[in-house]
Amino acid sequence: MLSPYEIILRKREGGTLSAEEIEYFVTQYTLGNIPDYQVSSLLMAIFFKGMIDREILDLTHAMMLTGTIVRLSDVPGCKADKHSTGGVGDKVSLMLAPLAAACGVKVPMVSGRGLGHTGGTIDKLESIPGFRTGISISEYKRILKRVGLVMSRQSDDLVPADRKLYALRDVTGTVESIPLITSSIMSKKLAEGIDVLVLDVKVGNGAFMKDLTQARSLAKKMVQVGKLYGKKVAAYLTDMSQPLGSEVGNWNEVVESVKMLRGESDADDIVELTTRLTAEMVSLCSGETRAVASQRVKKAIESGAGYEKFLEMVKAQGGDLNVVENPAKYRKPRKVVEVKSPEGGYVASVDTFKIGMAAVKLGAGRENVEDKIDPVVGITILKKIGERVSAGDVIAIVHANDEERAKSAKVEIEGAYSFSRRKCSRPELIKERIA
Amino acid sequence: MLSPYEIILRKREGGTLSAEEIEYFVTQYTLGNIPDYQVSSLLMAIFFKGMIDREILDLTHAMMLTGTIVRLSDVPGCKADKHSTGGVGDKVSLMLAPLAAACGVKVPMVSGRGLGHTGGTIDKLESIPGFRTGISISEYKRILKRVGLVMSRQSDDLVPADRKLYALRDVTGTVESIPLITSSIMSKKLAEGIDVLVLDVKVGNGAFMKDLTQARSLAKKMVQVGKLYGKKVAAYLTDMSQPLGSEVGNWNEVVESVKMLRGESDADDIVELTTRLTAEMVSLCSGETRAVASQRVKKAIESGAGYEKFLEMVKAQGGDLNVVENPAKYRKPRKVVEVKSPEGGYVASVDTFKIGMAAVKLGAGRENVEDKIDPVVGITILKKIGERVSAGDVIAIVHANDEERAKSAKVEIEGAYSFSRRKCSRPELIKERIA
Repeated sequence: MLSPYEIILRKREGGTLSAEEIEYFVTQYTLGNIPDYQVSSLLMAIFFKGMIDREILDLTHAMMLTGTIVRLSDVPGCKADKHSTGGVGDKVSLMLAPLAAACGVKVPMVSGRGLGHTGGTIDKLESIPGFRTGISISEYKRILKRVGLVMSRQSDDLVPADRKLYALRDVTGTVESIPLITSSIMSKKLAEGIDVLVLDVKVGNGAFMKDLTQARSLAKKMVQVGKLYGKKVAAYLTDMSQPLGSEVGNWNEVVESVKMLRGESDADDIVELTTRLTAEMVSLCSGETRAVASQRVKKAIESGAGYEKFLEMVKAQGGDLNVVENPAKYRKPRKVVEVKSPEGGYVASVDTFKIGMAAVKLGAGRENVEDKIDPVVGITILKKIGERVSAGDVIAIVHANDEERAKSAKVEIEGAYSFSRRKCSRPELIKERIA
Repeated sequence: MLSPYEIILRKREGGTLSAEEIEYFVTQYTLGNIPDYQVSSLLMAIFFKGMIDREILDLTHAMMLTGTIVRLSDVPGCKADKHSTGGVGDKVSLMLAPLAAACGVKVPMVSGRGLGHTGGTIDKLESIPGFRTGISISEYKRILKRVGLVMSRQSDDLVPADRKLYALRDVTGTVESIPLITSSIMSKKLAEGIDVLVLDVKVGNGAFMKDLTQARSLAKKMVQVGKLYGKKVAAYLTDMSQPLGSEVGNWNEVVESVKMLRGESDADDIVELTTRLTAEMVSLCSGETRAVASQRVKKAIESGAGYEKFLEMVKAQGGDLNVVENPAKYRKPRKVVEVKSPEGGYVASVDTFKIGMAAVKLGAGRENVEDKIDPVVGITILKKIGERVSAGDVIAIVHANDEERAKSAKVEIEGAYSFSRRKCSRPELIKERIA
């Protein structure tokens, strides 16, 4: 007879849990047979004592098996997804998925909602009027086959163990644990029936991982687990020490993505990172070199093939194409407030967490689970690290529906920027590739 | 607004909690406003990160304030209690309380039930037919004033926070934490309205603390907290690497105690430890030296004054004096099984935990909370560490009411003893005094 108590004690003393013990804990917890308070104390013990690779693999496996595993073998072609650990202004998925599809990859993308200070792909897509993210498995496959991509939220039967465990970790101070993050992400991705996975591990003051060493070790664990499951996996460590691109919010991020897909983007970081991650996905699927794949991705932007795929997908999922193609028709925020630089110099740093929280407080994210997203609010970032500013220059614009919130966002953003007299270099966008 | 989540995080990162944060957690948990799962993860973080002295004091204080604090100022004299961290065969309280009372100390003793492999004073007292351990506060004071001692179980309103926290610690692997043990014991003892406290911290394979260093640090913390509350406190580190005295059980431990109070004991360890701890209590109350106090305690044994007090107390609390004075009238266990030494030599060690568990399985303790104690079952220990035995000598006697249980206890006890060809020394009974 396995005892939760003895399992907790073994981990607390730094021991290794057997596959049987891990499976017992995960399965019985999901079934409601082990109380939250024993699981949270085990999670805290794991936070302190870690897990060896075998335990992480067993944990991922046990979690995966608590839900439905999607079989996509009847969809021809190489199926690939991408996962980002989350950041501020990270809209890469909105561009990567159609671009990869335009290059022949099948992209069954399953995404999440905004979490804490970070945005979520699903919230962004749902800012498109009519867009449906909850799709039955048969429709999901139909769209994937026909369009080449489908963007869906997690169904209730995708790894129920993770749903329960994540909710518990979120309130018991046990989120920041590499074994727990790895198993949470990988159990879901492995249940999706994909062949290829590209991981974007964000590093910096706007990411969950503040530190490069930690981010690297998370990336390595995830790649390792994915490979042991026979998947082709590559991970990138990328910068999150300032918002990605110019827009932070929901609808405004869709507009920024559409602009990029039309080849009209002037946000270098968005173009560079999206191209790189998409090329990686294409290359893992096709076997071409990343350089060749990169050329194909660039072509898919120039030719508008990626944008076409995006429109097809939006249409297939019920979104209003008229608004997507003519963003001026979208409803406008009531308040637009400029944030000005208090001094001249160079942008030295941006407290990205603060920017993310300012957006959440405007209504672009949720402070409580039941909060509704306001799709139209957000922040436009005009000045990024290393850029020269004069006192009084507009560094950001707040889009709000409420005067009070607009004001407080303005104050938050002012406090998030710091300036220097000396020239500052732009942070390295793509820090490492791990495969 | 205080947030349980942020408090967990601060402790997890090794920070110090403020008095306000500790009070908030303890009070709101006791009121049911903080869920078990957040408390268990905080407890695990405390297990790993510890607490500074100020935090332990604040925790003890906050816990104490969740319940009724007994005021004994209307009872004249010095009020003293003794607490043992628990062991096997530890019946010292049954002798210490009447002996100290015979020496003029007022002893309002509050005790617990058996826990895990250890026995509890309340279970032992309740083996006396008619004996009541649940006493109203007014009767409690009346007996204390008239008899000089009263022995009661914890009332429901004595530190409810500890009741709830202990039950949670017990199932979440967070019992063995010095800050948590200290606050659990001291919050209850400080709520009793006493002036003097003698602590017996058991060390060895039958104790919760296996290790002298750990036991010492627990003793120091408890003494420190008690002194900060203006109490006179002394702690002893004493041996629990074999059962104390000859009897392990309930009624048989009462009989052994009566024998000692009558001056008829041949269990040196019981006599030595009881005399020492009682003398400490008398000395802390009277201001006499411990040597003088020790002489008075010995006299109280010789004169029978301690035994008289014991009988008075039993009578006052409803116990059947006839049976106490004539143990032969007590009902007998159905099975008596001898455990014999498989080899000759010296007793080298006794797995005291195993002996305790064997007694529990006989029915002397509880395997589940709802189990009923069988007062008559138990184990008589005939050979202790360092004693010479020949193959076939009886080393212990099992008293049981069930053939199966008797057999399995016999096997357990055989497995608990180890022998050596070479002479072994008796473990040092009293290892240290901390005051």
